[in-house]
Amino acid sequence: MRATVIYGAGDVRVENVPDAALREPTDALVRVVRSCVCGSDLWPYASRPATAHGDRIGHEFLGVVEETGSAVDGLKAGDLVVAPFVWADNTCDFCREGLQTSCRHGGNWGRDGVDAGQGEAVRVPQAQGTLVKLPVAEDSALLPSLLTLSDVYPTGHHCALTAGVNPRTTVTVIGDGAVGLCAVLAAKRLGAERIILMGRHKDRTDLGREFGATDVVAERGAEGVEKVRELTGGDGTHTVLECVGLQAAIETAFEVVRDGGTVSRVGAPQYQAVAAGFGVFRRNITLTGGVAPARAYIEELLPDILEGRTQPGRVFDRTVTLDEVPAGYQAMADRAALKVIIRP
Amino acid sequence: MRATVIYGAGDVRVENVPDAALREPTDALVRVVRSCVCGSDLWPYASRPATAHGDRIGHEFLGVVEETGSAVDGLKAGDLVVAPFVWADNTCDFCREGLQTSCRHGGNWGRDGVDAGQGEAVRVPQAQGTLVKLPVAEDSALLPSLLTLSDVYPTGHHCALTAGVNPRTTVTVIGDGAVGLCAVLAAKRLGAERIILMGRHKDRTDLGREFGATDVVAERGAEGVEKVRELTGGDGTHTVLECVGLQAAIETAFEVVRDGGTVSRVGAPQYQAVAAGFGVFRRNITLTGGVAPARAYIEELLPDILEGRTQPGRVFDRTVTLDEVPAGYQAMADRAALKVIIRP
Repeated sequence: MRATVIYGAGDVRVENVPDAALREPTDALVRVVRSCVCGSDLWPYASRPATAHGDRIGHEFLGVVEETGSAVDGLKAGDLVVAPFVWADNTCDFCREGLQTSCRHGGNWGRDGVDAGQGEAVRVPQAQGTLVKLPVAEDSALLPSLLTLSDVYPTGHHCALTAGVNPRTTVTVIGDGAVGLCAVLAAKRLGAERIILMGRHKDRTDLGREFGATDVVAERGAEGVEKVRELTGGDGTHTVLECVGLQAAIETAFEVVRDGGTVSRVGAPQYQAVAAGFGVFRRNITLTGGVAPARAYIEELLPDILEGRTQPGRVFDRTVTLDEVPAGYQAMADRAALKVIIRP
Repeated sequence: MRATVIYGAGDVRVENVPDAALREPTDALVRVVRSCVCGSDLWPYASRPATAHGDRIGHEFLGVVEETGSAVDGLKAGDLVVAPFVWADNTCDFCREGLQTSCRHGGNWGRDGVDAGQGEAVRVPQAQGTLVKLPVAEDSALLPSLLTLSDVYPTGHHCALTAGVNPRTTVTVIGDGAVGLCAVLAAKRLGAERIILMGRHKDRTDLGREFGATDVVAERGAEGVEKVRELTGGDGTHTVLECVGLQAAIETAFEVVRDGGTVSRVGAPQYQAVAAGFGVFRRNITLTGGVAPARAYIEELLPDILEGRTQPGRVFDRTVTLDEVPAGYQAMADRAALKVIIRP
């Protein structure tokens, strides 16, 4: 079958790889109907050392079950399903607590002999725990929004939820990428009435306004901090949703959060340490968030999509075929595309 | 009057200073009945640069109201009162949210013309908001425990509360100082059934066991981490109460916390940054805590002390007069005393 392989920075190829096939009784074989490129895929695309043997890549997909192992209940050939970006048994103690990213029998796509999402098909380990059935046909117009359930929408939700967003909290969202925009959507859904979006790409922040942002701050660094403080009577916001992952972003987060407030981060940290010494301590700032257990939130977020109340799929602004995936990476790296959806 | 002044590392003196006296209508004048030396006083005692003019020091005291300003309601001469370690109006928005340490009209003892606690008397700003009446006489045997309401007991409580300690959470307390021991007491009070105390002073950890610790780990660093992991099936504990403030302590905290768990810190950070990069992110660890709004908790913690159910005052193991305060500092710095109480 065909699948995407990354060999180094700027070097993504679509190649013939061994066909996906069942190995364990807990596996399912899924033909990929839609996949996409994640902002986090851009980190290796920017900096991965070149190697002779590449790595399979892609962790967001939905597709049709073609075959299930003997131990898989509740799924059958023909079911349309979405996969969260980490696979998990959904039965261990961590999973039961809603932390499927720490599943005792789970793992990541594209590692240890597991297929990745940017390909024609995927062997899904722990399929019964991992996959969630979608009650639509594979030509549904809802597919882009349903695909966001793999990662960006639950990631935005995780950020807002762990930050404690509610109708009484003011919110700053840092980052106008797909996750930042989904964080706006999630904050709005949790009742936030004041959502300040920090981002400098007007087309993206315009979408952010449609998703619920009440204010947009295009400035960055000290100017951006000043602007958020102006908008909040000097105090900053109760919650800050950090959806970038760069050092500058997490630093800004601590500067725009109100005393006693919470910084939640879902941008994969590209830094080793957080400047959280006495100044942050004195102000009682909480740092939370982390890699989102998307699986925990899919059932909760699904109805709004099915019933048309929310359209996170609007973050996709370019569609490519599998062979066009390398160009899709480049378009996202160039910020020419916000998020690229793949029809294999 | 006589009061304690710090001139530099190792240089604490008891001197004549101007008598405390009312200045603002919101002030009260309090004659100090008991004060004490805080673990955090040991930081300047260890490292403060020497200067010709010293700083008043001490932020924990209880005493008798001698006089009140015209704007002070609810307090009168003769009342026994305890002061939290930060003064506050207790009416601004931060105070109403229970974050009196960020009060819009509050401040610290011993700064900007405000007296400190280790002296004969104190002018208390925002007295109506700051002081809490104690329904006992000034010769009560409960005074040591009541004095802990100034700082160490509410600080331990803040640590346990912000960590989310409850009957279902396992707890590690890092540090066997007065705050660590009070954190054990607070965790027990919030229902924790498994409390692992990390500390290497046997007399202190013995008291910790009486306060509710179920396990004691005397080892530090990698060995200590290994021991806590052994005690918890390899996982670590749901909550970690970091009551030291040193880099090594906060690093240990992140290593003994369970995935999805919370590190709360109340030890004043002697570090600038926290190693909370991708590894911490992947495990969804929350960092919370901060300088404790003691004022927010006094009424809640008071009844258990008055009714004899809890005795945080047992952390005091040495009593000194005001003139003996310098020796008290040295005893605490030498770890010869756990916490020193002062009878002016």
